[in-house]
Amino acid sequence: MASSPKFQAPKGTRDFFPPEMAVRRHIEAAWRSASIDCGFDEIEGPTFEHLELYTVKSGQGIVNELFSFRRAGGENDYALRPEFTPTLARMAAAKGASLALPTKWFAIPVHFRAERPQRGRLREFVQWNVDLIGPPSAESDAEVIGCAILALERLGLGADAVRVKLSHRGAVAAALRALGVPDASMAGAFELLDRRDKLPPDEFGQRAAGLGLPPAALDRFNELARTRVPLSAGIDGVVAALGVPASDVAELATLVSVLEAMDLAAWCEFDLGIVRGLAYYTGVVFEIHEASGAERAIAGGGRYDGLIELFGGPSLGAVGFGMGDVVLGLVLADRGLLAPERAAELLPRPDCFFISADPALDPIMHRLRSTLRRAGLHARHSAKASRNVGKLLGDAAKCRARFACIVGAEATGGQVALKDMATGEQRMVAVAELASLVAR
Amino acid sequence: MASSPKFQAPKGTRDFFPPEMAVRRHIEAAWRSASIDCGFDEIEGPTFEHLELYTVKSGQGIVNELFSFRRAGGENDYALRPEFTPTLARMAAAKGASLALPTKWFAIPVHFRAERPQRGRLREFVQWNVDLIGPPSAESDAEVIGCAILALERLGLGADAVRVKLSHRGAVAAALRALGVPDASMAGAFELLDRRDKLPPDEFGQRAAGLGLPPAALDRFNELARTRVPLSAGIDGVVAALGVPASDVAELATLVSVLEAMDLAAWCEFDLGIVRGLAYYTGVVFEIHEASGAERAIAGGGRYDGLIELFGGPSLGAVGFGMGDVVLGLVLADRGLLAPERAAELLPRPDCFFISADPALDPIMHRLRSTLRRAGLHARHSAKASRNVGKLLGDAAKCRARFACIVGAEATGGQVALKDMATGEQRMVAVAELASLVAR
Repeated sequence: MASSPKFQAPKGTRDFFPPEMAVRRHIEAAWRSASIDCGFDEIEGPTFEHLELYTVKSGQGIVNELFSFRRAGGENDYALRPEFTPTLARMAAAKGASLALPTKWFAIPVHFRAERPQRGRLREFVQWNVDLIGPPSAESDAEVIGCAILALERLGLGADAVRVKLSHRGAVAAALRALGVPDASMAGAFELLDRRDKLPPDEFGQRAAGLGLPPAALDRFNELARTRVPLSAGIDGVVAALGVPASDVAELATLVSVLEAMDLAAWCEFDLGIVRGLAYYTGVVFEIHEASGAERAIAGGGRYDGLIELFGGPSLGAVGFGMGDVVLGLVLADRGLLAPERAAELLPRPDCFFISADPALDPIMHRLRSTLRRAGLHARHSAKASRNVGKLLGDAAKCRARFACIVGAEATGGQVALKDMATGEQRMVAVAELASLVAR
Repeated sequence: MASSPKFQAPKGTRDFFPPEMAVRRHIEAAWRSASIDCGFDEIEGPTFEHLELYTVKSGQGIVNELFSFRRAGGENDYALRPEFTPTLARMAAAKGASLALPTKWFAIPVHFRAERPQRGRLREFVQWNVDLIGPPSAESDAEVIGCAILALERLGLGADAVRVKLSHRGAVAAALRALGVPDASMAGAFELLDRRDKLPPDEFGQRAAGLGLPPAALDRFNELARTRVPLSAGIDGVVAALGVPASDVAELATLVSVLEAMDLAAWCEFDLGIVRGLAYYTGVVFEIHEASGAERAIAGGGRYDGLIELFGGPSLGAVGFGMGDVVLGLVLADRGLLAPERAAELLPRPDCFFISADPALDPIMHRLRSTLRRAGLHARHSAKASRNVGKLLGDAAKCRARFACIVGAEATGGQVALKDMATGEQRMVAVAELASLVAR
């Protein structure tokens, strides 16, 4: 029975035992603290939504990538949320005109995709979402990008380890038009750009030829898809690469100046092949990748003005990104930032480990342990049958307790032994003083 | 379009805007800190499981209470988890003999029930789960009960506000047998006891009569279902109420002595009508209720020795409970512990609110804001077009910022104005010192 697949986690999902959970909470804590320090407020929505919330934009095609279902006897179709933006747009639309502007929201929900699991892509994953709703501005774009960078920095990743790749849908569309891509093929060209690193060069070339491009433009399309320009080269490099007037890259130029003021330019580069797969992006788009390009994108986002209106809300600008825990976890592990030894260090440290030297003293130990816990301290005791104090002190050290408290015969007189596990110093103390002596 | 039900949260689920999310995180923080201080380690599992994980114990009858589904083209049936214990038992079974004993786990997952939503009962809810796996003992039972009480105490509820109601499945079964309930009707008698407060007295009486009880025993069954004995009355009161030998209440007696040692007796009482609905409980069972009995149970749990073996693991004792956020939230709100004013206080406070007196100075403000955030501080700025410093100081006060930093003409010379929002004191400081002056 133990070997039955029915008694394993479903394919593409994860069991988080304490070490894995400590890693997850470590990542989430960096996300949360960066969000709060950047002035974003946390929200959350339902784990499943009406199926139409997803099909209204993307049509029935998306249904195969969703886990969808209907309650027995119910009338509505639901889907486990594959992403957070439709929920956020629905919530913003519900507030309507009462929404304060700008509204800065973050969320750390789980998401679901009914795809084949592969490296960096699971069927259930945690994703940090950061969104700023308000009048479109480069400051807003920079604010969400800066928040992503702040979290990565707190997780130990530097500008050498990850690259923030900036692009702009309007600028890329102008360049494609200049190349001769007909408007009817624009969506196909965007989709092709989005998959440029996942397709073999032959197939990429074949599909590009199918876009109706004049043969002479094919090489330039190919070049465009792979153009990476350092931010230091300035916006002129982008203009040259795209072959479009400077006015079409004006928003990117302003964004760069704000990122420079925020001292974040070293993290960023232009990557004109980036357009993002989802249909709702309207302006600046960006992805964050591990510097060597070894993994899928760590994060992706951009401006999606108009989406909230689509869900029945006012016409509002918005910009945001999503960052999943799966690829990020791989990047952190690859760089030794989440080695198993380190994961163990992430588990909570007890403030006091109680050892009762005699079963008759257990009631005193139980009361002292309660007192410490009520004082806000992390107090454990050995549940082992052994009353060998030396051996139990080893258990105290193993769980990295700050203090050990040995409840011996003197406890009936109100005294216990308190051992500082770092210094090894041990002394008798009054039980009434125990909590204040152990307090952090 | 805004009014379409498709663009609302599904029935029985919730949108958490920042004030509601702050309340949720406040409750979760109390749960988490109590768990950690009591030495429990956090785990998590998949949001959906193989449907068989739930039907193996309860048969097909449970399917109507589950949201179940199948991936398009897939072969397996899944269900959104209605509770955490099967996942925990599966995870413990997977560790097999390598599981350290005792293992102390907690989790704060979301759960789903496809029932009609009503007060205290939603289709999606958060539930704190605390479980101790190891040799059965009253210490273990008391450890999980103590953890529940610690969290409630930290949320502001005292022994006068909530009652921990203790019972024991074995003792109640012995009493039912003594009353003449045939073994074939035992499951029905338990189910009836579990629903005693939800059924009208007439219907309760009718169903009790259907259990095959001798007419003289019906009154005593009724009495048993409503017997509440203060812990201070001692175990003799329980023996008298149940009419069973003291040996059948020995485990309860030991539990009481440990709870007394832990100074928790004032929170507890015996309630012999408590048996818990789920089939897997085997010994001590308990529920926590608001003292007046006005709401559904805040928490429920008990001992479930043998469940892990059922999922293919070793034969292990286990005890645990679940506490949902919905009833608890109602109890806290009813007692004024989560009034809307208080919810606003739970939102994070900015350390520094930046005001740029002139658009030309925005780049300096952007850099200073980045510097503070990188130093681990919560820094915001006004995104308003207004440059009226007095008005913007009002915004700083409104979001309860600790300091306001006014970036004026002197900023080009390296000086900014720093205002302590609590004292109103304002002075010029060097930008290089700003982070250390604002540091908490």
